[in-house]
Amino acid sequence: MKTSSSPRRAVKPASIIRPLVHTLHAYVPGEQPKIKGLIKLNTNENPYPPSPKVLAATKAAVDGRLRLYPNPAAQALREKLAKLHRCAPENVIIGNGSDELLALATRTFVEPAAGQASSLSRSPSATRLPRTHLVNDGTGKMPVLHSSRSTIQYFTPSYSLYPVLAAIHGARTNAVRLTKDFALPTLDVLRKSKAWDFNAALTLVTTPNAPSGRAFTTDALDALCRAHRGVVVLDEAYVDFAEQNALALALKHPHVLIARTFSKAYSLCFQRVGYFIGHPELIAALDKLRDSYNVNGLGQAAALATLDDLPYYRENFRRIKATRARLSESLGQLGYNVLPSQTNFILARPPKFAAKEWLEKLRARKILVRWFSYPEVKDYIRITIGTDAEADALLRAAKKILA
Amino acid sequence: MKTSSSPRRAVKPASIIRPLVHTLHAYVPGEQPKIKGLIKLNTNENPYPPSPKVLAATKAAVDGRLRLYPNPAAQALREKLAKLHRCAPENVIIGNGSDELLALATRTFVEPAAGQASSLSRSPSATRLPRTHLVNDGTGKMPVLHSSRSTIQYFTPSYSLYPVLAAIHGARTNAVRLTKDFALPTLDVLRKSKAWDFNAALTLVTTPNAPSGRAFTTDALDALCRAHRGVVVLDEAYVDFAEQNALALALKHPHVLIARTFSKAYSLCFQRVGYFIGHPELIAALDKLRDSYNVNGLGQAAALATLDDLPYYRENFRRIKATRARLSESLGQLGYNVLPSQTNFILARPPKFAAKEWLEKLRARKILVRWFSYPEVKDYIRITIGTDAEADALLRAAKKILA
Repeated sequence: MKTSSSPRRAVKPASIIRPLVHTLHAYVPGEQPKIKGLIKLNTNENPYPPSPKVLAATKAAVDGRLRLYPNPAAQALREKLAKLHRCAPENVIIGNGSDELLALATRTFVEPAAGQASSLSRSPSATRLPRTHLVNDGTGKMPVLHSSRSTIQYFTPSYSLYPVLAAIHGARTNAVRLTKDFALPTLDVLRKSKAWDFNAALTLVTTPNAPSGRAFTTDALDALCRAHRGVVVLDEAYVDFAEQNALALALKHPHVLIARTFSKAYSLCFQRVGYFIGHPELIAALDKLRDSYNVNGLGQAAALATLDDLPYYRENFRRIKATRARLSESLGQLGYNVLPSQTNFILARPPKFAAKEWLEKLRARKILVRWFSYPEVKDYIRITIGTDAEADALLRAAKKILA
Repeated sequence: MKTSSSPRRAVKPASIIRPLVHTLHAYVPGEQPKIKGLIKLNTNENPYPPSPKVLAATKAAVDGRLRLYPNPAAQALREKLAKLHRCAPENVIIGNGSDELLALATRTFVEPAAGQASSLSRSPSATRLPRTHLVNDGTGKMPVLHSSRSTIQYFTPSYSLYPVLAAIHGARTNAVRLTKDFALPTLDVLRKSKAWDFNAALTLVTTPNAPSGRAFTTDALDALCRAHRGVVVLDEAYVDFAEQNALALALKHPHVLIARTFSKAYSLCFQRVGYFIGHPELIAALDKLRDSYNVNGLGQAAALATLDDLPYYRENFRRIKATRARLSESLGQLGYNVLPSQTNFILARPPKFAAKEWLEKLRARKILVRWFSYPEVKDYIRITIGTDAEADALLRAAKKILA
C-alpha cells in the first residue's frame, strides 16, 4: 500500500465523539479509599465474608480452565436460579452485576429521544419534528405520547445510577418525589398530579428503597405495576434484608422485571453477578443485546456455590438485621432521627451538626459513611450496617462528637 | 395504597420491546460443548494454562475481600499497562473483555441512524428527513455525509461480531471486501471504488485479520489511518502471534484506538479482561459510558499477575508459532491450501471434500474446528493452534478421512 502523499491535519478528538457524550458526567461510585484501619460503612457492602464453601469452590475453579471461555449465558446459574425461584431458565438473565442489566434495559425498552437525534443531525428540518405527539401503541386502544417511548421514570430519592443511565442513552427522565417520609405516593395522587407517566417506556423502582431504607408492600407495588403500560423494573438489590419481596409480580405480569444481585446480601461485590427475572419475551429481548460472554467464569462458579449454601447467608441476614435494630435504637437515644429500614443500611438525620459535618467528623475518626447532596436527603447520612464491633465503634465516635 | 379497582388487559410483551430489537438476531459464539475427550480447536483459546504464578496470585485473592467492590476503573492495571506500553494511565481503559469495549465504542462514537429513529416514531413527517445530507463536521472544512456519522465500517471477512454490534446500536454498516487473498486493498483502490467511507464514524480493522490469519504491515495501517477522519479501532486480539504491532499508531494519531485482550495470548478467556489504548480524550469519552464496576476483581488480579510473568507467555507464543509452522506444512503435504498465518489459528482450504463436510467428519472424530457459511470463506475451515499432541491428532484424523 502506498503511503498517503498529502499530509492532513490531525483529527480533533472532540469532533469525533458524539455530542451526547460531551454532555455527560461520569457516575461517581462511593469512595473506595485505602486507609489502614478505616471502618467502611459507605457502599452497603456486607460485613461478612462469603461462606467458606463458596471460597473453597472458587479457589478450586482457579486452574488451567481459565484459558477457556466461560459459559456464554451462565446457563447452569440460570437453571439453578430458576429452581430456587420456581420458574423456568427462560425467565432468567444473568448480568455483570445488576448494573449491567439496568443499562441493558434502557437500550432494550427505551427509544433514544427524538430531540437528541435532531440536535445531532444539525439539520434545520429535523428540529421541526414535534417533541411529543400521539402515536398508536399497537394495541389499537391506548394513545401513547411519543415522549413516553423515550422516558425513563423513577421516584426520588432512589438509586443515583438511574439518571446517569438515562443520560448515557439519550433518554428523557421523569423523576417524581416519594412522599415526605419516603413512602410511595398513592395511585390516586399519582394520577391527579399528572406528573407520573403510566406509559413510560421504563420505570425503575428501588424496593426496598435506597437511600431511605424504607420497604414498599407487595400489594402496593402490584397496584402500581397494574396501572402501567410500559416496562417496570423492581430493583430488589436489598430485598434479603426485608420482610417481603415482589418476585411473584415478575412471574405474574408480562411487563414487570425483578432485579437481584449477589453483591450485597451474598458478599460477592468483587465478582459482578446480578440477574433479572421476568417474562421470557422480555428476557430474550435483553439477551439479544447482551455481550456474548458478559459474566466471568469465576463469578459464575462463586454464585453457583452460593446457592448451595443459603443457610450460611440467612444467618448473616439475621445478624445484620439484629445489628440494624440495635444501632437504630442506640443512635435514637443519642438524638438521631433514624428511619425504619428494611435494608443493610440506615438513613438517619443526625443531631447538633449538619449531616455533611457529621460525614467529615466521622471520617476524621476513620469511619466512612455516605452523604448525598440532593435536597430530599441532604439532612441525612446513610450508614451501612457493619459488624457489631463496627456499630459499637460508630456509637463511641458519635458520643465523642456530641460531647 | 388502594389496589386498582379496574382490571386491565395484560400488556403484550412484544409491544414494549423496541422495534429495533425485534429485528435483531443474537450473536452466535463458537460452540462450547462438553464432550469427553473432545479436541477443541474452534474458538482460538490458548492450549496452555495461565502461568503458575498467575494461578497462585488469583487463588490468593479469593478470600473475604470478595465482599468488597473491585476498583471501579481497574486503576492498578491501567497503570501497569501504561508502563508496559510506555504511555500514561489516561491512555488506557479496561473492559469486561475487549468485546465490551468494542460495544462501548459504537455507543461513544456512532449516532444511531436517523432512518431508525424515524421509523420508530411512526410519524409520517419524520420519514421525510433525508437519509443522507451534507453537514458540517465542526472544522469548517470537511463536508461530511450525514450517514457517515451513523456508519460502522469494516472489511470482510473479519470479526463476525462487528455487524452484530452495529445492528444492536441501530447503526448503518459498510462492509468492504479485502482482496481475494485477504490483503488490504490499496488506498487508491479504496478511493476509486468509492465503496469505502473515509469519514465513517467508526472503522474496525481486525489486525492480524480473523478468520484469515493474515497480518497487515504497520506502514499500510498507518497510511489507512491517515486517510480517515473518524475513529479507527485496530483490533489486535491476535497480535502476540504476529511479527508487527500497530500500538504506536494509537499513540501518534488522535483518532486511532488499539484493542487488546488477555483472553487468547494470555490464557484468560474465563476472566474477561481486555483494553483499549488511545488518545486521552477518546478514552475519557468511553469511560463516561462504562458501567461503574465493569471489570471483576479476580480478573483484575489475574491480569496484574500476568504482567509480572511475561517471559512465561512469550515462551508459549514461541511454541504456538512453531506448532503453527509444522501443522501448516503437514496439512499442505496432505493437499490443504493453508494461508500464511500470524495468529493462533490457520485458515485452510481442504482437499477432496467440501469444507463443511470436513467440519462434520472431524467432529465425528471428536475434533472441533470452525466453519463460516459466508461466501468469502465458505471453502475454508479455521483451525485453532493447539498443543503439538492436538496437532498430531488432527493430522492423523485428516489422513484417515483422506484414505
